[in-house]
Amino acid sequence: MATVEELKLRVRELENELIKCKQKRCPEDAGGSQNYRQRIVKMSAEVVDSNPYSRLMALKRMGIVEDYERIRTFSVAVVGVGGVGSVTAEMLTRCGIGKLILFDYDKVELANMNRLFFQPHQAGLSKVEAAEHTLRSINPDVSFETHNYNITTMDNFTHFMDRISHGGLEEGKPVDLILSCVDNFEARMAINTACNELGQIWMESGVSENAVSGHIQLIIPGETACFACAPPLVVAANIDEKTLKREGVCAASLPTTMGVVAGLLVQNVLKYLLGFGSVSHYLGYNAMQDFFPTMSMKANPQCDDHYCRKQQEEYQRKQAERPKQEVVEEEEEQVVHEDNEWGIELVSEVTEEELKAASGPKPDLPEGITVAYTIPKKENTPDGEMVEETEQSLEDLMAQMKRM
Amino acid sequence: MATVEELKLRVRELENELIKCKQKRCPEDAGGSQNYRQRIVKMSAEVVDSNPYSRLMALKRMGIVEDYERIRTFSVAVVGVGGVGSVTAEMLTRCGIGKLILFDYDKVELANMNRLFFQPHQAGLSKVEAAEHTLRSINPDVSFETHNYNITTMDNFTHFMDRISHGGLEEGKPVDLILSCVDNFEARMAINTACNELGQIWMESGVSENAVSGHIQLIIPGETACFACAPPLVVAANIDEKTLKREGVCAASLPTTMGVVAGLLVQNVLKYLLGFGSVSHYLGYNAMQDFFPTMSMKANPQCDDHYCRKQQEEYQRKQAERPKQEVVEEEEEQVVHEDNEWGIELVSEVTEEELKAASGPKPDLPEGITVAYTIPKKENTPDGEMVEETEQSLEDLMAQMKRM
Repeated sequence: MATVEELKLRVRELENELIKCKQKRCPEDAGGSQNYRQRIVKMSAEVVDSNPYSRLMALKRMGIVEDYERIRTFSVAVVGVGGVGSVTAEMLTRCGIGKLILFDYDKVELANMNRLFFQPHQAGLSKVEAAEHTLRSINPDVSFETHNYNITTMDNFTHFMDRISHGGLEEGKPVDLILSCVDNFEARMAINTACNELGQIWMESGVSENAVSGHIQLIIPGETACFACAPPLVVAANIDEKTLKREGVCAASLPTTMGVVAGLLVQNVLKYLLGFGSVSHYLGYNAMQDFFPTMSMKANPQCDDHYCRKQQEEYQRKQAERPKQEVVEEEEEQVVHEDNEWGIELVSEVTEEELKAASGPKPDLPEGITVAYTIPKKENTPDGEMVEETEQSLEDLMAQMKRM
Repeated sequence: MATVEELKLRVRELENELIKCKQKRCPEDAGGSQNYRQRIVKMSAEVVDSNPYSRLMALKRMGIVEDYERIRTFSVAVVGVGGVGSVTAEMLTRCGIGKLILFDYDKVELANMNRLFFQPHQAGLSKVEAAEHTLRSINPDVSFETHNYNITTMDNFTHFMDRISHGGLEEGKPVDLILSCVDNFEARMAINTACNELGQIWMESGVSENAVSGHIQLIIPGETACFACAPPLVVAANIDEKTLKREGVCAASLPTTMGVVAGLLVQNVLKYLLGFGSVSHYLGYNAMQDFFPTMSMKANPQCDDHYCRKQQEEYQRKQAERPKQEVVEEEEEQVVHEDNEWGIELVSEVTEEELKAASGPKPDLPEGITVAYTIPKKENTPDGEMVEETEQSLEDLMAQMKRM
C-alpha cells in the first residue's frame, strides 16, 4: 500500500515526464494553439535567444544589407520541390520571405532520403503538402500557397500562368521571382515560355545526372539569353566518358551537390531582392575539381520563342530611351553564339566516338561550361539555310533530356 | 491536504495524459517499434522508390565512385553542431556514413532558426540530443555517439582525445576523420592540438561574422599547414570596411552561406573517404562576388606546436623512404610564409587606420584569401630573433577571435 509521500513523489515524477514529453512533440501535431513559436508582427534586431531574426537583422549592422526587413515584402514561386527546391524553400522560409508558392506533383519516397529536407515518416505524402507542414512549423510568419500538379499540362499551365501573374504578396500583383528547381527539360521550357510571355524574371537551377556538377542561371526576358535562345549551359564534370555506363534510368544524386546548388541559388535570390553584392548571371559548380565557372550571355535575336523576341525589342527600346550615362554603366556581356546549328549531344551521355563525330560550330564558352545538347545539322539541307524544325527538335530533346 | 485517494486519481490522470502525449510524439521519439523505415543490412543499387540508397549506389554506375558501400566502414567526428555542423551531420547521415560522433555543449535557441536543420519545437534541448533524434529517424543505419560538453576544458579535452583515438566504427580504433564546425578560435586550437598529437587528419570550416564568406581546409599533420603553423586563412569579403559598425557581439549568419560551406565540406569528405575527384586543401567562398579561391600551404618548420614539428619530421622521413617515382607525383604546394611575425588584425573587424598601421611581412596568398589575424612584432625585440611568446599571443588571440 502506497503512502502519501510515495504517491506525491510519483505525481512529481509523472508531471516531469509529461513536461518533457510535451516538449518533444511534433510541431505539426501540436495544433494552432500550441505553436512552438508565435507569429512575429515586426522583425526586430534585438539580440536575445528568443529572436529568430536577430542574426539576419545583424546583416544591416555588418554593412551587408541596407534594409533586411524588405524580405517580408517579396513573393517567390518555387517550381519543383525535390533535392534543390525543398532546400531552396527552407532557406527562404528561414530568411523570413513574405510568401512562397510551391509547385510539384510528386510524392515523397524513401528513394529521396539521400537528399536534405524530407524525412522517412513523410513517405507517401505529396511533396508540396509535406513541405508546407515542415516549413510552416519552422516559420509561421511566411505565407504559403501550394499546387500539387504538373505545370506542363495545358490546364495546369494556364493556372500556373495565372498564379505567377497574380500570386504576389498583395493578391493580384505578380510574384517577384520564379525559381526553377525541376529535373526535366519539359518543365524548364514551360517556365521559360510563361516567363517570356509575362516578362517575368526567373532563375534556373540544375544538377547533372552523375551528381557531381550543377549550375544556377538568372534569366531576364529580353536582356539575357532565355532557355530557348541557346541550348542550356551546364558544367562539364571532366569525367572520363569511357567509364560511364548507363544501365536503366536511375540518375545519381548527392545531398552535398544539391545543398550547394540550393545555397548558391538562394544567395543569388537574396542578393537580387535585397540589393547587395553582385548577382551572378550564370554560376557553375564542378564538384570533382571544386571549380566554379561564371559567365553572361545575351538574348538571341533569332530565338524560336516569339515572346522572347518581343521582350528583346522592348528591352532595346528601353535601352535607347535611357540617358547615355546609364547605358555606359551596363555590365559587359559576351555574345556567345551567332546561329543555332549544332549536332545533338547530351553532355553526360556523350561517348568519345560521338564527340569526334559531332559537327557544326560550338558556342565560344568559358572553360568548364558546355552546352547540355547541340541541335543537329539537318541532312540534305544546304549549309546556312534556316529550317523550321522547332517542333521536331523539341520532341527529340524532350525524349533525350529526361534529367539534366 | 491531499488524501491518498485524490493522489491515486491524480496519478491515473497523469499516466493517461502521458500515454496520449507519447502517442502524439514525433517518429524519432517513438522508439524502435514505430520506426518509419527499417534498418537496411546491405546497401542495394535496386532502383525502387523504397530504396533510400538507390541514388547513391548509382554513383558507381555513373563512373564517379568505385565502391560506394565503403561509406559504411567510416567513422567521422563532428565538433560543433551549429549552422555548419548540423547540416554536415545531416548530409553524412543521409549518405549512410557508418558512425557519427557529435560534440557540442550548446542548447537549441529560436535565434538559431535562421539556419537549416533545427526546428522551433526543439528550442531548449541540447544540440547534440536534438540532432541525434532527428538524424536517427532520417537514417537508423548510422551509429551515433554524442557528447554534450565543451572540448576545451581540461577534463573534457582528455575525454575528447580518448574518443577520437578509440571511437572508430570498430571500438578501439581511431575515427577516420574529424570535422571542425566550431565558431571560435579556442575550440579550433583544441582540435588542432589533439590532431597534431595523434597524427589525425581533419578538416576545418568557418563562416565570417558578416555571413558572406566562408572556407573549408584539409589539415594533414606534418604535411599541410596546421592551425598553429600560420594564422588561419579566411576569404576576404571585399566589403568597404568603413561601413562596418560593430555594436554588441551579435554576428550575422545566413542559411545560404552555411549550407554552401557544409555542402563543400561534406563533398570534400566524400571525395577524401571514397577516393574520387580531387580533394581541396583550401577552398574559400566569397558570396558577394561568387568567387571561390583555392590554395595549398605546407607545414611551417618553425610551428609553435611541438607535435606538429614532430609530425613534420615523421612525414619527411616517410617521404625520403618512398620510391623516387612516387615523390615526383606529389602535388605542387606553395610555401606561403617563412616566419611568424605579423601585426595583429582580425579581418572582419579591421578599420582603414588599423590596416595602414599594420606592419610586418604578410604571407603571399592567392587573390581573395587573407589571414584571419596577424601576430604582432614584439617591441624591444631585435629583428629576426624568435621569442617564446606562445602562451601570451594565444590569449590575446582568443580574446579577440570569439567568432571567426
